[in-house]
Amino acid sequence: MEHDLVGDKEVPADAYYGVHTVRAVENFAITGSAIAQFPDLITSLAAVKQAAARANRDLGLLPPDIAGAIIGACEEIGSGRLHEQFVVDPVQGGAGTSTNMNANEVIANRALEILGHPRGRYDVIHPLDHVNLGQSTNDVYPTAVRLALVASLRRLGASLRALATAFTAKATEFDDVLKMGRTQLQDAVPMTLGQEFTTYAVMIDEDRGRLDEAAALLLESNLGGTAIGTRINGHPRYAELACRHLADISGEPVRPAGDFIEATQDCGAFVQLSGVLKRVAVKLSKTCNDLRLMSSGPTAGFGEINLPPVQAGSSIMPGKVNPVIPEVVNQVAFEVIGNDLTVTMAAEAGQLQLNAFEPVIAYSLLRSLTHLRAACDTLATRCVPGITANREHLHDTVHRSIGLVTALAPHIGYAASTTLARRALATGRGIKELATEAGLLTTEQLDTILRPENLTGRTPLPEALVMP
Amino acid sequence: MEHDLVGDKEVPADAYYGVHTVRAVENFAITGSAIAQFPDLITSLAAVKQAAARANRDLGLLPPDIAGAIIGACEEIGSGRLHEQFVVDPVQGGAGTSTNMNANEVIANRALEILGHPRGRYDVIHPLDHVNLGQSTNDVYPTAVRLALVASLRRLGASLRALATAFTAKATEFDDVLKMGRTQLQDAVPMTLGQEFTTYAVMIDEDRGRLDEAAALLLESNLGGTAIGTRINGHPRYAELACRHLADISGEPVRPAGDFIEATQDCGAFVQLSGVLKRVAVKLSKTCNDLRLMSSGPTAGFGEINLPPVQAGSSIMPGKVNPVIPEVVNQVAFEVIGNDLTVTMAAEAGQLQLNAFEPVIAYSLLRSLTHLRAACDTLATRCVPGITANREHLHDTVHRSIGLVTALAPHIGYAASTTLARRALATGRGIKELATEAGLLTTEQLDTILRPENLTGRTPLPEALVMP
Amino acid sequence: MEHDLVGDKEVPADAYYGVHTVRAVENFAITGSAIAQFPDLITSLAAVKQAAARANRDLGLLPPDIAGAIIGACEEIGSGRLHEQFVVDPVQGGAGTSTNMNANEVIANRALEILGHPRGRYDVIHPLDHVNLGQSTNDVYPTAVRLALVASLRRLGASLRALATAFTAKATEFDDVLKMGRTQLQDAVPMTLGQEFTTYAVMIDEDRGRLDEAAALLLESNLGGTAIGTRINGHPRYAELACRHLADISGEPVRPAGDFIEATQDCGAFVQLSGVLKRVAVKLSKTCNDLRLMSSGPTAGFGEINLPPVQAGSSIMPGKVNPVIPEVVNQVAFEVIGNDLTVTMAAEAGQLQLNAFEPVIAYSLLRSLTHLRAACDTLATRCVPGITANREHLHDTVHRSIGLVTALAPHIGYAASTTLARRALATGRGIKELATEAGLLTTEQLDTILRPENLTGRTPLPEALVMP
Amino acid sequence: MEHDLVGDKEVPADAYYGVHTVRAVENFAITGSAIAQFPDLITSLAAVKQAAARANRDLGLLPPDIAGAIIGACEEIGSGRLHEQFVVDPVQGGAGTSTNMNANEVIANRALEILGHPRGRYDVIHPLDHVNLGQSTNDVYPTAVRLALVASLRRLGASLRALATAFTAKATEFDDVLKMGRTQLQDAVPMTLGQEFTTYAVMIDEDRGRLDEAAALLLESNLGGTAIGTRINGHPRYAELACRHLADISGEPVRPAGDFIEATQDCGAFVQLSGVLKRVAVKLSKTCNDLRLMSSGPTAGFGEINLPPVQAGSSIMPGKVNPVIPEVVNQVAFEVIGNDLTVTMAAEAGQLQLNAFEPVIAYSLLRSLTHLRAACDTLATRCVPGITANREHLHDTVHRSIGLVTALAPHIGYAASTTLARRALATGRGIKELATEAGLLTTEQLDTILRPENLTGRTPLPEALVMP
Repeated sequence: MEHDLVGDKEVPADAYYGVHTVRAVENFAITGSAIAQFPDLITSLAAVKQAAARANRDLGLLPPDIAGAIIGACEEIGSGRLHEQFVVDPVQGGAGTSTNMNANEVIANRALEILGHPRGRYDVIHPLDHVNLGQSTNDVYPTAVRLALVASLRRLGASLRALATAFTAKATEFDDVLKMGRTQLQDAVPMTLGQEFTTYAVMIDEDRGRLDEAAALLLESNLGGTAIGTRINGHPRYAELACRHLADISGEPVRPAGDFIEATQDCGAFVQLSGVLKRVAVKLSKTCNDLRLMSSGPTAGFGEINLPPVQAGSSIMPGKVNPVIPEVVNQVAFEVIGNDLTVTMAAEAGQLQLNAFEPVIAYSLLRSLTHLRAACDTLATRCVPGITANREHLHDTVHRSIGLVTALAPHIGYAASTTLARRALATGRGIKELATEAGLLTTEQLDTILRPENLTGRTPLPEALVMP
Repeated sequence: MEHDLVGDKEVPADAYYGVHTVRAVENFAITGSAIAQFPDLITSLAAVKQAAARANRDLGLLPPDIAGAIIGACEEIGSGRLHEQFVVDPVQGGAGTSTNMNANEVIANRALEILGHPRGRYDVIHPLDHVNLGQSTNDVYPTAVRLALVASLRRLGASLRALATAFTAKATEFDDVLKMGRTQLQDAVPMTLGQEFTTYAVMIDEDRGRLDEAAALLLESNLGGTAIGTRINGHPRYAELACRHLADISGEPVRPAGDFIEATQDCGAFVQLSGVLKRVAVKLSKTCNDLRLMSSGPTAGFGEINLPPVQAGSSIMPGKVNPVIPEVVNQVAFEVIGNDLTVTMAAEAGQLQLNAFEPVIAYSLLRSLTHLRAACDTLATRCVPGITANREHLHDTVHRSIGLVTALAPHIGYAASTTLARRALATGRGIKELATEAGLLTTEQLDTILRPENLTGRTPLPEALVMP
Repeated sequence: MEHDLVGDKEVPADAYYGVHTVRAVENFAITGSAIAQFPDLITSLAAVKQAAARANRDLGLLPPDIAGAIIGACEEIGSGRLHEQFVVDPVQGGAGTSTNMNANEVIANRALEILGHPRGRYDVIHPLDHVNLGQSTNDVYPTAVRLALVASLRRLGASLRALATAFTAKATEFDDVLKMGRTQLQDAVPMTLGQEFTTYAVMIDEDRGRLDEAAALLLESNLGGTAIGTRINGHPRYAELACRHLADISGEPVRPAGDFIEATQDCGAFVQLSGVLKRVAVKLSKTCNDLRLMSSGPTAGFGEINLPPVQAGSSIMPGKVNPVIPEVVNQVAFEVIGNDLTVTMAAEAGQLQLNAFEPVIAYSLLRSLTHLRAACDTLATRCVPGITANREHLHDTVHRSIGLVTALAPHIGYAASTTLARRALATGRGIKELATEAGLLTTEQLDTILRPENLTGRTPLPEALVMP
Repeated sequence: MEHDLVGDKEVPADAYYGVHTVRAVENFAITGSAIAQFPDLITSLAAVKQAAARANRDLGLLPPDIAGAIIGACEEIGSGRLHEQFVVDPVQGGAGTSTNMNANEVIANRALEILGHPRGRYDVIHPLDHVNLGQSTNDVYPTAVRLALVASLRRLGASLRALATAFTAKATEFDDVLKMGRTQLQDAVPMTLGQEFTTYAVMIDEDRGRLDEAAALLLESNLGGTAIGTRINGHPRYAELACRHLADISGEPVRPAGDFIEATQDCGAFVQLSGVLKRVAVKLSKTCNDLRLMSSGPTAGFGEINLPPVQAGSSIMPGKVNPVIPEVVNQVAFEVIGNDLTVTMAAEAGQLQLNAFEPVIAYSLLRSLTHLRAACDTLATRCVPGITANREHLHDTVHRSIGLVTALAPHIGYAASTTLARRALATGRGIKELATEAGLLTTEQLDTILRPENLTGRTPLPEALVMP
């Protein structure tokens, strides 16, 4: 039995959390899940509480034994213990107060145990007067969320790298596979399949830089700003100390924000990260669209590449194999783009000195990060390495395509080339054959111009042939 | 040990599912959750399978004993058993094939047990040749999803009704509470708090009609269309029979779509439902924004109403009570609006004869429906009934407001009224006092014009006073 | 020189508008465009003002000559005159007040001219005391916007119908063209190109029903509710009279909303329409994606159909023809989906008794409607009628595809069919040939099963062959 | 009369554009507007064409006189002439080909005039063989769009700076105005109005950094990549030369992309910019929401500040003044957020070697940039400078608020503070009075603790009083 502003309330005997947590669980029964689903968040909360306890100890505001017990409890949580005690719904009102209260209570009770007291002896260690000393939900919660996002973002970065590496390996394998490039789904000019896969590698890999930029914004902390950033009730040296300890504990270069009042209410860093995740999603989706397109067929499609079969494709069509891995990546991308909108609306809805909707921001971003990472890993391990190329078919389409006429245009002009192309299309005959027949260029000239290395830009044309 | 197109694979001994499910679980490890989280979906899948088995039995395509066992297994699932066997990730590639396979395997194995065979005796009852007979993922899965959405939507409708009722009860209680109406956050003209709460009731209640319209579209089924809607491999009378059985089992007026090929690929009904859920979300969010605004304060805000305290508001500010219930509703609204975007993108991405992205559509819509319902219930039970009005303060603001001048305009003209209003604002004196002083209207006239019932439109003015 | 609450202000001598309009033009210089770009909006504004004048005349609140002049001015605007006087930016603060003021001023000045007075003689006919009599921006503006949307929506409905008709004509032309249907971009089972085009017709045509449902909501008017829906300053019989006149003038079944206070603040009807337009956009985009896919090539793509060339495709690749018409339709779809988000956010942001953001809602919806209509018309006239089919190629892919094996599965079982399909794929040999060779079915059986009419579901199989 | 792939076509005699432009105007009649509405785009197109001509001249590929004439024509366009000749619709199919063709034709014809030839003498200077020499729409168009975005973005940056400056000036003016800070719309702890306005300045100003990061990505050009980035038909030294000339002409540090094939198809830089513009929009909207909230009233609202009246607020409520400037800014924000979605969808829809939907991306981003800038300028000039504070009212609310109890909590504990706060709320008596009466703290202690400078964090508390 515990007590709060609303009145008395029973708390389960075996729980480490207390009355505030119990009320929150009752008040917010939305998603049917708990914040424990995000280990990065729980670990980051513990890191913030630990940094605060260290700072309060250094300043003489907390007795060493109490500080030590609190720090010990935080370390345990940081190493993965007691996460199941973090039971509040991630989608909650109160700007994260319930999450902070859940942490305060679990830490207080575990610290009491460490000191040999029974749980609930709040006269010895109080969830608010001790564990939350010098803190407010409004600086603790955003700081923990930001740290959790950075931790999760680092892992996504590693997964992007691995995926880019997988594409690069394929690019090397397909280095000499000539194929038609396409613009607007129409045959354009030749390229190699290796160039195509290199593109995916480059496109995906460069987003690690964007993630790092987003991380830099997230690592600006308002810790010590307390309620609204004015540092009310805060010791003058607390903010700087706590931030230093937090950097030490987390291993991330956390630094104090330039203006704590602004930092307490501004959700710009979340919006920025969300925009970057949307960008990652757009690129992954585009890449998977291409993979699905190139592997379409086997007969009535592009038939350029084959994705490795990972499961039977159909309950009615025997032998059918579907591009299920790219498809699931597409869907994660759509989910991430939807989450970006949720984040945007929540950020826009902030009022005055606080954004009350950070819980749904955290929920959306942590899910986006987790799902994106799973999607990248799935693609990198279950699909890309097993891709094979239909080399003969690809070679054949290049030589039957009217796209080759582009290479002749600098030599015979745009108008004559157009005529040639339309004629090739109408008769089904090859560009080379028609050009020779019309005496527009000699066989030698054509052989040089249409050499694959020249067409795909990997070897420049001999100067004499470059332009008329 | 089971076998499929990819090769041999071990299956847990105690599982009712088989090789296809195991592969799917390995291939799609995205959300860390299973389709079992949506009981409506599992129940609807069982209903569709049951309807198919009944139809196949009627047509003589399934022997009575096998049909009976399959039907028995489906009924068990329909009553809530074996849901934990539905283990595939809701976000999956393959257009729902893994969900369908999961159902086929669980039903086949349970049906085998019912007939006294061990699980895995697919030579007796085969997941595909018997349970999936005459079916394709492409008609089974969308039909099950649609039914699940309708079931979930019916419950949301009931929750909207209950919420509207809660607002109506408050409207009655606040029927005589005069207050200033506001446009663009500026004092406009008087109204009653009862009228304000009636608005929320009306606004929310009317969306039940929109949900019903969406349900009508969802209840058009392509069951029997098989792979792409051409009814390949389907018995000529199967579609009509299966649909009739499904209506009987589900209690919903399912009916065959007009064009099965169109129905197999078109996600319009999902987009329509999603648009309606977005509309519900917009209205709930607007309503909660208003509640938060009216309850702002207690000192430095509107201070018009008080929300019941349901938990302590702050870890640093003692005695602070926050509007946590409306805040969580706002966040659910933002999530639903984000989900709508996910649905939109997934629907737009469909290609040719099928939309491969229905799993994320189902996932998003089922979550939106569930969360919206939880939000409505939370608001209806934990917030609205406990709202109280600060009657004196409300009364006082009406009589100090310059908004009263509007009622004088028809009698003294727009220009003179503007002058009066600006003067009242500058001096802090009341409209009534200034108007009398200026001899613009007599005290009797003013008393009549400014009578609350007249101002709030509930009693028309005496004809003589209506217009100049 | 005119005067208002802010002070004196010069007005151009040749303008019909006045000081309020001039200030609005200065205050809102956002888009560089004027509301005159939406003729439906101007015409609807005039209709509302005309209905109000008629009602005020009937009630004896306006002298017959003044009412007559106002009505005359409105009729002129309704017939297309003076639209260039509607100069305020469509994106404006003030919840549409500037648009209403612009209308009041133009109508007053034109009415003055009709009576033989010079413009500006507001003592005779006043923009507010006469033209706006018994009205508020808050009932006039939404009603005019709703009417304008309905007018625009009716035209979109006609364009959808015309587009569906164009697709139906093609479906008839392609009725006998056999092709491979595809699910998840993989060869599935056969169908006809006529069935494919019928799908587009059905899918697009049915949205006319959704538009009609949206129109019904839009035609609920709060006219007569004045400032916040309490009917303050309104004559008891005004609302009913004005609405009746408006229905008469517009030819649309406008009817009074059930609750004027709710109707004044609720933007649900806009959100609903926006959701439906998004649905139309999704369908158009999906359709155009398919057209671009089917016409991909000419050599290295699907090569199933040819879109009529409407312009040269490339500045560097001679002879290249691109699917530019579907591409522009896709882009309009993306714009409409973006506009839907703008509408959603604006609707959600409404506070208390009014939504101040209706101008951007109107702007977004009117643009969506106009652009969608242009897109439909462009597609219906410049692309669909000229589409041709590559019949031989389509026929050929059906007979080379392993998708045919699906039709054998009911006869030889799922497992044997899978083996057959994988073998066909590995060897490049046909399903029919391999099945005969393996003695799985006789040539006669195969001929019957694989008859195109049977495969595409247009003629049911002989009963004996339907199932094993 | 001119000729192209489709056939003969009449061109207006006085036009500088030609057949390709005329066809494009006919094909794309979507928005009713022309690309000329974006001067930055036209100027950037001319800059790219000029750079190409210079490079081709340097390489000896274009005769000096022809190069000179082309360069002269481009310079004229760059200085603002002939923009009215850029008549194609910004929303167009063909990936920008029509825009490129429009430029090629106008430049060719103007160059012909410069050399003394009549327009249309394409045998002398040809739009494609000369003006477009060594170029493709696919490198010219994205490069021009990117440059145009950077130019527009620079101007937005300047406007953000000016707006931040306006807020800073107000912050200085309101430096000593004590007020209640609020979290979740509930009274929290004191701050100054100056701190509040500083927040807006900081929040807005820091986005200039984000814009610069986005600009860096946009300044990576694929110019010289031609059709798909393989540099087909390009002189080996062209890309480097053209890029150098472009940097010189534009004054922006344009540099060649690292992988031209990737750069030709990837729209990541557009998505990134769009995400940043969304972030700007979110911040502006949040700021304007706050301004509207703080100025709500005058009687029945927060009544903290007054926005300068810029127009009459109502057609029915005399004397009403509305926050019309913040309202229009909100609406622009909603539009920009909607445009971000359009950009996202268009970027995701890119296929293989090109994104065909760049025109709608350019259209959306250029509009977002232009409208955002107009919104910032409007806010900075028509609203912020005229804001005044209701100092007495603000002072009064601080001293009546229970939020002061927070400052006592470190001295008397969380639980005792809660009791005090609830009692103050119930009795309407002040915190200070009740605390003294209860003997919790001495008057001297209270005076020190509750000194405004201490409460707002601007002067740290004497060490002795900081913590218990």
